[in-house]
Amino acid sequence: MKQHRAHPLGIPGMPGSRTAPAARGKTERVQRVTGLDRQLGARFASAGGSPPVAIRLWDGVDAYTPADGANIVGRLVFHDRGALISSLASPELGFGDAYSAGRIDIEGDLVQVLYAAFRSMAEDGPTTGKRSLLGRLPKPQVNTRDRSKKHIHHHYDLGNEFYRLWLGETMVYTCAYYSNREASLEEAQIEKMHHVCRKVRLKPGMQVVEAGCGWGSLAMHMAQHYGVYVKAFNISQQQVAYAREQAKARGLADRVEFVEDDYRNVSGKYDAFVSVGMLEHVGKDNYKTLGDVIYRSLKRGGLGIIHSVGRSTTAPPNAWLEQRIFPGSYPPSLRDMMDIFESHDFSILDIENLRLHYAETLMEWLRRFDDHVVSITRMSDESFVRAWRLYLGGCAAAFLASTIQLFQVVFAHPDDNRIPMTRGHVYGKESSDWNL
Amino acid sequence: MKQHRAHPLGIPGMPGSRTAPAARGKTERVQRVTGLDRQLGARFASAGGSPPVAIRLWDGVDAYTPADGANIVGRLVFHDRGALISSLASPELGFGDAYSAGRIDIEGDLVQVLYAAFRSMAEDGPTTGKRSLLGRLPKPQVNTRDRSKKHIHHHYDLGNEFYRLWLGETMVYTCAYYSNREASLEEAQIEKMHHVCRKVRLKPGMQVVEAGCGWGSLAMHMAQHYGVYVKAFNISQQQVAYAREQAKARGLADRVEFVEDDYRNVSGKYDAFVSVGMLEHVGKDNYKTLGDVIYRSLKRGGLGIIHSVGRSTTAPPNAWLEQRIFPGSYPPSLRDMMDIFESHDFSILDIENLRLHYAETLMEWLRRFDDHVVSITRMSDESFVRAWRLYLGGCAAAFLASTIQLFQVVFAHPDDNRIPMTRGHVYGKESSDWNL
Repeated sequence: MKQHRAHPLGIPGMPGSRTAPAARGKTERVQRVTGLDRQLGARFASAGGSPPVAIRLWDGVDAYTPADGANIVGRLVFHDRGALISSLASPELGFGDAYSAGRIDIEGDLVQVLYAAFRSMAEDGPTTGKRSLLGRLPKPQVNTRDRSKKHIHHHYDLGNEFYRLWLGETMVYTCAYYSNREASLEEAQIEKMHHVCRKVRLKPGMQVVEAGCGWGSLAMHMAQHYGVYVKAFNISQQQVAYAREQAKARGLADRVEFVEDDYRNVSGKYDAFVSVGMLEHVGKDNYKTLGDVIYRSLKRGGLGIIHSVGRSTTAPPNAWLEQRIFPGSYPPSLRDMMDIFESHDFSILDIENLRLHYAETLMEWLRRFDDHVVSITRMSDESFVRAWRLYLGGCAAAFLASTIQLFQVVFAHPDDNRIPMTRGHVYGKESSDWNL
Repeated sequence: MKQHRAHPLGIPGMPGSRTAPAARGKTERVQRVTGLDRQLGARFASAGGSPPVAIRLWDGVDAYTPADGANIVGRLVFHDRGALISSLASPELGFGDAYSAGRIDIEGDLVQVLYAAFRSMAEDGPTTGKRSLLGRLPKPQVNTRDRSKKHIHHHYDLGNEFYRLWLGETMVYTCAYYSNREASLEEAQIEKMHHVCRKVRLKPGMQVVEAGCGWGSLAMHMAQHYGVYVKAFNISQQQVAYAREQAKARGLADRVEFVEDDYRNVSGKYDAFVSVGMLEHVGKDNYKTLGDVIYRSLKRGGLGIIHSVGRSTTAPPNAWLEQRIFPGSYPPSLRDMMDIFESHDFSILDIENLRLHYAETLMEWLRRFDDHVVSITRMSDESFVRAWRLYLGGCAAAFLASTIQLFQVVFAHPDDNRIPMTRGHVYGKESSDWNL
């Protein structure tokens, strides 16, 4: 917490400052490039499935150029031997840290270069071995209640002003839903909130519980547009403070209650259970507990939705993201997610994958981040900006490359036949409740 | 195969004739009901979670009556001690066989009584122990290519005339889709076929492969309404013969090819992979193989759909159904199904659960079966009719009770961003292909 006060953004353990090596000044002694360095540069490319991305070393000469005819999308430039070796040993954590520290540059469109790299790695076969030459990835941290608080604080309490710069006025920090391509980010975020509300068929007067509510946008949207009462849980102090202020300002404080508490402490009975973008922070070990929370809080006849980043197969999270950006985070496969639903025999009604919507959302966040890069650098420092560009661009690329997914899962208790017969109500058709 | 000729329906190993005990004539010596018999009758009810269903023994006296105030839906009548004991020892296989043999009767609406029983068992907690007092359920049979052929022959080669009586003219033997409740079975089956076609976005000229095609209805529907070319695989001789005849009669023989072969022998490359109601017969051991088949036959840019009965949790199949009705069958949980998709990193785009549609479909099949019960009894025998009523009614009840589900899973290769951005095209809105 010491850094918290010292840092202009109020960032405890922010990426650049925690353990990543400091950026090296351009005045440092230039290392001579050896034949071995060149081999290592080429090895880095072949270990990554030989993507259409050139690799240049600190002498300004390419150690690897993609095959003739490849549609070359960019270049990685390693500025010193240590950056190259740590990237080889640990292509996620080592590369991410070296990039953040300015010891690696990416020439070309950041998202396109990373997309090409991710696809080429994925097509080259199972990735686990490639993801760390040291043979093992760091184990994601278990989210006890105390540690959850610390982990969430690390990311979400970076300062509301900072997020506002690039999330826009909706302050929604989850995948938007572009029902048409011309939509602005703001419109697409509003559309996403409607999409979620329609999926759980909110009706006036309902009691809704939201687990992990960010800055409160969805909770307020539900109350305002669907006439429901919302109890919304979040352990980020800054987000809850902001949300409460907003609810007051918008005259919704009597219908939306923001509770600064862990989802595990949800009590009461609700007509709908909504959780958008929290599951990533829950951690696999706690899925059964989350299932228990839902089981006891969702009334019979109510629908639940979980919206989360996920994966097509179970795999350790990206080590750099998990260590530097989202401590304790874990994007589950659908197989993993079944731990939430199976122990109480929930009936899964509907799963939708919105991965390209998240790619679009992240690319827009990155554009806005770049538009404000001067102010953000002033608020933090260069290594923070580099880390966050890598995070936003890298996630956009990963969604494009299908190495991560975005799942919305709708479910109900098994002893409940008041479920929607079709999904027409999500698409502007009459709701089709048969009451079988 | 000896029974094949002898049996009026041409039924090899049909339920009543295979191993189920023969029906007992009413003239047999009546057993005296003892105090222990009454205890066992009451025990059968309590082991099943005390459903709102009375239990009567062969002296005409109830051994169990539901609690006061329970909304009693019917009664099980055991006609002899052996039926009671084998039902207690094996509530699936023993009960099913004794019911088929006429040694148990169900008073009240068949579906409602079974629904009440299934819900009460499910609510009573984990069911594995209850499903067999002998401690273990029969292991489902592995589906080698030879055994698959035998298993499919057992059920699907019962005679096309028999199926026509209650499936109706569409000859579709899978879950219908009631986009509105007033739809007839025929309309709902046609709607289901459109629903499937829309989900995989068929366009004129496409090459489609269908794995497990029944009597060919969907294959012909796709060719006729969407202008595609279909290669459809099935190992049921009688179904393929019927399908070929139909395709000729409807002038579709140049666009639909029916191949009497195993899905494992699918060759070629296709723009869409469609499989409706086959996965239930594939068996868990073969899911990875099915994934390999899809991987090599679905072109990049193409969508696949698998439509299957499933479950909310992994569990052995109903022993009676697996032994008597669908040998080798296994309804997978979503967790199980991931074995198909994970090894090739398929991106799951959309999962819809249509369990109540299958309940509605099965109830309509049962009504039609009952309308033709005299002809069907003449074509077979009483124990066959009883077994099939238990199968149709039992499955309807299981879908209503959410102990089985119906999943439609749409998926794509991971290196493919031509996937639909929204599901609007399934609901009559413009298709939203972004080509990101």
